[in-house]
Amino acid sequence: MALGTCRAVLITGCNRGIGLGLVQEFLTRSPAPDLVIATCRHPDQAQELQQLKEQHQRLRILKLDILCENSIKKVVQEVEALVGEQGLNCLINNAGINRLATLESVTAKDMLAIYETNTVAQLMVSKAFLPLLRKAACQDAVMGIHRAAIINVSSQSASMQLLFQNKKSQEVYPYRISKTALNMITCCLAADLLSDGILCISLHPGWIKTDMGGSKAPLQLKEAIPEILNVLANLREKDHGAFLDWKGEVIPW
Amino acid sequence: MALGTCRAVLITGCNRGIGLGLVQEFLTRSPAPDLVIATCRHPDQAQELQQLKEQHQRLRILKLDILCENSIKKVVQEVEALVGEQGLNCLINNAGINRLATLESVTAKDMLAIYETNTVAQLMVSKAFLPLLRKAACQDAVMGIHRAAIINVSSQSASMQLLFQNKKSQEVYPYRISKTALNMITCCLAADLLSDGILCISLHPGWIKTDMGGSKAPLQLKEAIPEILNVLANLREKDHGAFLDWKGEVIPW
Repeated sequence: MALGTCRAVLITGCNRGIGLGLVQEFLTRSPAPDLVIATCRHPDQAQELQQLKEQHQRLRILKLDILCENSIKKVVQEVEALVGEQGLNCLINNAGINRLATLESVTAKDMLAIYETNTVAQLMVSKAFLPLLRKAACQDAVMGIHRAAIINVSSQSASMQLLFQNKKSQEVYPYRISKTALNMITCCLAADLLSDGILCISLHPGWIKTDMGGSKAPLQLKEAIPEILNVLANLREKDHGAFLDWKGEVIPW
Repeated sequence: MALGTCRAVLITGCNRGIGLGLVQEFLTRSPAPDLVIATCRHPDQAQELQQLKEQHQRLRILKLDILCENSIKKVVQEVEALVGEQGLNCLINNAGINRLATLESVTAKDMLAIYETNTVAQLMVSKAFLPLLRKAACQDAVMGIHRAAIINVSSQSASMQLLFQNKKSQEVYPYRISKTALNMITCCLAADLLSDGILCISLHPGWIKTDMGGSKAPLQLKEAIPEILNVLANLREKDHGAFLDWKGEVIPW
């Protein structure tokens, strides 16, 4: 499926895993966005990402530490210089961390650290890019990633309804809780940004074999990533504020 | 409605508002719990609470800063000495804070501070009291606050489903998000504590005229508090892991 006229997309946490997979997939779609902006904390250590740059002129790699206010400010200025008056069409908040923590082992420190990275930072990055997303939103009338969108990478494990049904013991307290909170951010942004025409969703990318997903995960990156891009390409106003999985199915909150 | 054989209840954040109202109501029910343990950060400054102590021998006031690990440890020891082998029947995590913050004004600092108080602390306090709740849970078979329960005071504003339907602009970002995360804690605790027989719910106490609720709130404390105690007294296994309002109605996540 084509990506329409999505000119500029920015993805956080692109050094590996799902972020890197999304960058590769965006670059090889036809038509590809004019600009695929990949950010990570340490671009010089992101070898696979750097290799992609040799093959793809549309790729830009920028340094971003999503926990650092100044780093966010700096990257917004750099992106502004790249996208100009056309603005940024699609922001994918993909960066995140996980740590095993059961009810017995979870600490306040872990809870705060994972919330800061998985939840607070996504809100701060989204806020910082609002001016560029609003610029892009002015140039179209139909909602979608070709116009302006914020995609928060969440997790099915954030679903309270599913947990309530399954009643399974929990081994990732801080992660689940941070992603549930991120889903509320999606809802708040959806309410506040509807009038701007900026589409907002939470996305469960599937449980994928990555460093974070682990070896027990049932999905390969190459299975899930093309499906995710199909879901993104098809997003319209009806999806605004929703929690979707990698196949486009709605997940209950 | 009677409270059955709930012997010992502990409520956090009792210096004013809903916490103080719950303490008063528990003390005046018939039969009242043998022990109503009211905690707050500064008992010496909690005048109304201290006045209640002059009239009610069942009331104990203990100092607790829910953000301080040592303070939590100390209060658990004090409560253990009070309740003995019978354990603690009901923990009401009521302490919380709010601050106005729109999408434009919200800061990472506010997000973290409100999460720490409204979410992380509730988990840490719950964890610390688990041994005493388990002791109480061993002494009955039917779930309820007469046996063992954790009541997380949440807010209707934490409902993503309701926000999704209403699509109203948001003025309390950190608060809403922290309470949604607290709801996920309720779900995780419900999954992990079912086998212990410890009932867990999130409770929306109503939007009440208090210092935190403000003067625009439609409810008086004296209307809502007796209803809340009726809801608590009626809790059974069917309610385990639910999000209920002050009338006992289920709120969607």
